[in-house]
Amino acid sequence: MKEEVCFGVDIGGTSVKIGIFSMKGKLIDKWEIPTRTTERGKNILSDIADSINESLKVKGIEKNQVTGVGLGVPGPVKEDGTVLVCVNLGWGIFNVAKELSELLSIPVKAANDANVAALGEMWQGGGKGCMNIVMVTLGTGCGGGIILDGKIVAGTHGAAGEIGHAPALAEEDIIGVCGCGKRGCLEQIASATGIAKMATKYVDEFKMPGMLSGNNNISAKAVLDAAKKGDETAILVVEKMACYLGNSLACICAVVDPEIIVIGGGVSKAGQYLIDTIQKHYKEKVFDALKDIKFALAKLGNDAGIYGAARMVATEADI
Amino acid sequence: MKEEVCFGVDIGGTSVKIGIFSMKGKLIDKWEIPTRTTERGKNILSDIADSINESLKVKGIEKNQVTGVGLGVPGPVKEDGTVLVCVNLGWGIFNVAKELSELLSIPVKAANDANVAALGEMWQGGGKGCMNIVMVTLGTGCGGGIILDGKIVAGTHGAAGEIGHAPALAEEDIIGVCGCGKRGCLEQIASATGIAKMATKYVDEFKMPGMLSGNNNISAKAVLDAAKKGDETAILVVEKMACYLGNSLACICAVVDPEIIVIGGGVSKAGQYLIDTIQKHYKEKVFDALKDIKFALAKLGNDAGIYGAARMVATEADI
Repeated sequence: MKEEVCFGVDIGGTSVKIGIFSMKGKLIDKWEIPTRTTERGKNILSDIADSINESLKVKGIEKNQVTGVGLGVPGPVKEDGTVLVCVNLGWGIFNVAKELSELLSIPVKAANDANVAALGEMWQGGGKGCMNIVMVTLGTGCGGGIILDGKIVAGTHGAAGEIGHAPALAEEDIIGVCGCGKRGCLEQIASATGIAKMATKYVDEFKMPGMLSGNNNISAKAVLDAAKKGDETAILVVEKMACYLGNSLACICAVVDPEIIVIGGGVSKAGQYLIDTIQKHYKEKVFDALKDIKFALAKLGNDAGIYGAARMVATEADI
Repeated sequence: MKEEVCFGVDIGGTSVKIGIFSMKGKLIDKWEIPTRTTERGKNILSDIADSINESLKVKGIEKNQVTGVGLGVPGPVKEDGTVLVCVNLGWGIFNVAKELSELLSIPVKAANDANVAALGEMWQGGGKGCMNIVMVTLGTGCGGGIILDGKIVAGTHGAAGEIGHAPALAEEDIIGVCGCGKRGCLEQIASATGIAKMATKYVDEFKMPGMLSGNNNISAKAVLDAAKKGDETAILVVEKMACYLGNSLACICAVVDPEIIVIGGGVSKAGQYLIDTIQKHYKEKVFDALKDIKFALAKLGNDAGIYGAARMVATEADI
């Protein structure tokens, strides 16, 4: 094979996902290696380099066919590729892009993993065809990514798109204190954890009736399933979450005015019902010029990170 | 004179400000012409072209010494220079940059006036030396502009930076309905109008005592002056405004993570006291990674628009 390729790498706390892509965004192959977080994560980059070199050998690809390696990192990353801190991997401050590039003799670009996932959804996922997107990931926490003109907004401290920690809750004590130490963060309600906690509170403390009562370990999925079946307590929880998220999205859109909002993460498996509920509250809150901004479900699931990472270095990307 | 120059033009509802600048951002000369809004504003661009041509003649500048004309327009403008609507000028949808460029035979770039003012403050004002800024203009209304990597974020509908219409107020009925038709917009409290209305309500309806009572026409300036002198009612109003604005800024910073927040507009004449009060509330609300984002007063006053407009076309700008 002679055509150019690029690599997308998504570093997680337990495994590193690696994908090899065509310039047009076609996934040629993907695999995973363990994340060796021992010894302050000093082997992670060399493990990635070894795996990429091995794959080039097996596939008979020359280094000069590789336009670059994109890297998603679970922590704040500045535009020049400097990681500021990465607790899960044991890393301190250093230029991760420069270091991996030296190991591989291939150009490397790095960015925060949530931002990279947003770029992936723009390239080949729910935001395909758009250049300005806001992505919200409703998982254990609430992540986000802002893409403008087809590029990640990294921010001065690598913290752009950290919408889960935007102050959002008027009733600051619905849930308690956020992991970041503040009260009232959007993530405290707009996340699987937030949905489960709020439902548990309503059922256990307020003795609200319905399908969820008697469940000792209420999950976000149980809440969303019950809401879809018409359970009033569950509907109340979902509407409340959607109300706060819709309000925050109305703020975010007044700042960056995207073409589309893409909703991903485990909670988004609830599908169109979730999108419709969030969009209803968004439209009530946003000012008129922005009320027709589209909403879409993310499409790439756990592969969004490798797609987005590859997109950073896909020089002839079909955008 | 042989060196290259550029023009910055700021179209207002009653007058058009025009400035001629060096590439380094030195204002060489400035003047104003009336805005002829009659006949759906059809003469505005030709009046600007005539005035620029006249000034080139008087100053002995050749057209090939002019790198371009930047234009600030009081309405939403897309990145390609298309105005979407401009009620104050009588304009509908057309490409204002293209039309002025054809009249002048000089390259023209156009953007929304609040966004252009933000770019001006980045170039030669309160945000000088920074490439990522959020500007807030507290005037009759509340305007905003987002600059990332030294460039205006225009948005899909030309509505990026419209932070005055971000939903912000939990007590949605403090002031009533915003001019945009929604309740709870930030502008309803974070503006000269908002400050004056809230103070009037506190004094007239709630009979709060102090320097403002007995004043039948309370202005924002009177409120800020009284607050600086220690008047408790006035302090309550300023703290409340700063609390909501600080909260919104904490959201905005979680989205775009700027280097600096620049506060301008008539209300900002209250100076460091205002900045300190807003920053205090901001720090209480924002998440830790962003708590040291700088705050500064705008410096260019009514000239911010012509500076920013010129910056769009200053090809060798000293940034």
